[in-house]
Amino acid sequence: MGKQKIIGVIGAGDGKTLRAAETVGRLIAKRGALLVCGGLGGVMEAAAKGAKAEGGTTVGILPQTEKESSNPYIDIPVATGFGEGRNVVIVRTADALIAVGGEYGTLSEIAFALKMGKTVVGLNTWDIKGVIKAANEEEAVERAFNEPAS
Amino acid sequence: MGKQKIIGVIGAGDGKTLRAAETVGRLIAKRGALLVCGGLGGVMEAAAKGAKAEGGTTVGILPQTEKESSNPYIDIPVATGFGEGRNVVIVRTADALIAVGGEYGTLSEIAFALKMGKTVVGLNTWDIKGVIKAANEEEAVERAFNEPAS
Amino acid sequence: MGKQKIIGVIGAGDGKTLRAAETVGRLIAKRGALLVCGGLGGVMEAAAKGAKAEGGTTVGILPQTEKESSNPYIDIPVATGFGEGRNVVIVRTADALIAVGGEYGTLSEIAFALKMGKTVVGLNTWDIKGVIKAANEEEAVERAFNEPAS
Amino acid sequence: MGKQKIIGVIGAGDGKTLRAAETVGRLIAKRGALLVCGGLGGVMEAAAKGAKAEGGTTVGILPQTEKESSNPYIDIPVATGFGEGRNVVIVRTADALIAVGGEYGTLSEIAFALKMGKTVVGLNTWDIKGVIKAANEEEAVERAFNEPAS
Repeated sequence: MGKQKIIGVIGAGDGKTLRAAETVGRLIAKRGALLVCGGLGGVMEAAAKGAKAEGGTTVGILPQTEKESSNPYIDIPVATGFGEGRNVVIVRTADALIAVGGEYGTLSEIAFALKMGKTVVGLNTWDIKGVIKAANEEEAVERAFNEPAS
Repeated sequence: MGKQKIIGVIGAGDGKTLRAAETVGRLIAKRGALLVCGGLGGVMEAAAKGAKAEGGTTVGILPQTEKESSNPYIDIPVATGFGEGRNVVIVRTADALIAVGGEYGTLSEIAFALKMGKTVVGLNTWDIKGVIKAANEEEAVERAFNEPAS
Repeated sequence: MGKQKIIGVIGAGDGKTLRAAETVGRLIAKRGALLVCGGLGGVMEAAAKGAKAEGGTTVGILPQTEKESSNPYIDIPVATGFGEGRNVVIVRTADALIAVGGEYGTLSEIAFALKMGKTVVGLNTWDIKGVIKAANEEEAVERAFNEPAS
Repeated sequence: MGKQKIIGVIGAGDGKTLRAAETVGRLIAKRGALLVCGGLGGVMEAAAKGAKAEGGTTVGILPQTEKESSNPYIDIPVATGFGEGRNVVIVRTADALIAVGGEYGTLSEIAFALKMGKTVVGLNTWDIKGVIKAANEEEAVERAFNEPAS
């Protein structure tokens, strides 16, 4: 019943970005942490798929009112019904976040996380002061686990 | 990775009410469902304690911005930061709800659940049209699992 | 720039209930208070219509993401995008609430208001401990303005 | 009862930034629009002060549960109790937004607004693709009123 570390994966993109997200999900699960994400498709689904492949546990904080909208790799769908307002819940629930690619939704999550003083590691994501740039998936996960929050 | 049933336990009280909540938590875990609750003390903690005693998994949807506020029997703390606004997330995330005792916060959850057409089973709780009254913990859990939603 | 008193009108129903809500809205505006409601149809629209007929100001706290969903009598539409989660915002924003008729959504608002220690006056609404029953619209508004919060 | 245009002012800073925010508030009120902001101090207060100096109406979407936390220039305090989650409500309620200076909270609002396809005009703020840079307060307000949303 000791609390597991919870790592958030945020982002958006395709191709190489999705493969990076899946690797990040695998590495998070290998280290025994919970993975939290937005529960939908793209980077969120790829990361959850990676985590499940390593036997991890995945939490999806959904914008919708119905948990049926979650991707098939989510163990615990949380149906907030708050739309984009759920982004702040993902950030609050995570101990640290890894951003993989990403568009404006990801930017809102990066901004919230930095405001709350949480570690944000970035892989080819927004270039925002405070985001720790990682060269690859291994470094991203390593730094998300070991970087002290600001 | 098939989705588990998710049963919400809501309520408030002491003594006999807490013992009932713990039994309800045990019975939910025995049937292999996830337990979702508000993550704090009282009925929420007793139910989570019961579920953990049977090896179940517990989700706490917290009002606070920090997950450290959750009780020690919560596996997955979700820090919403939405205060009482989190009650609606508990209800949306659950497939069915069991109310054990309860005060005004519980009443708000019963109201949301009935509005959303979800099954609400009651054990010594508010007498509201639509709540299914159960005589004991076994009947409460049985009906939460088997009653079709309205 | 002194803060005006803000009175919330909640409820649901038709015929006589809508006429009562409109009268309640008129009386609130006559006393110089802001009217806050859920911004949609039925009791919310009738109360806002009454307030506008007396030159009052109306605020609609909407469940939707778009303010275009508000009724035509709302001066200030607040688009929360939080669905039923917006009920808690109506309650927090109001100094006191008047419930006219009402179904489960109204019950959730009554429950939140009583939990927060706010005055709730009822006109043919849910019979919940803590709600002040008023015999008519005049008494309802009078008590909403003058009853000290618990 | 025709809906007024609603312009959001977001940002943070001091000195010259506050003076710019006050001017922006004045110009918004002069054009007959409602001003919506986060209701607290700094840029939010300066913009509301400017709007009131021109007889405008100001709405403050507060993070707190109590409306007493709003600044003295807010006519209509909305107490969300959602913490930073209220940022998304400011953005949804505004037709267009003007960012003056700003830190991470402002960045989250810019991100939400661009995601929702709303016009964001910036005065010495984050350099994010999609933000329209204005050279001065007059141009900022002009473009917030006249730029078509994307």
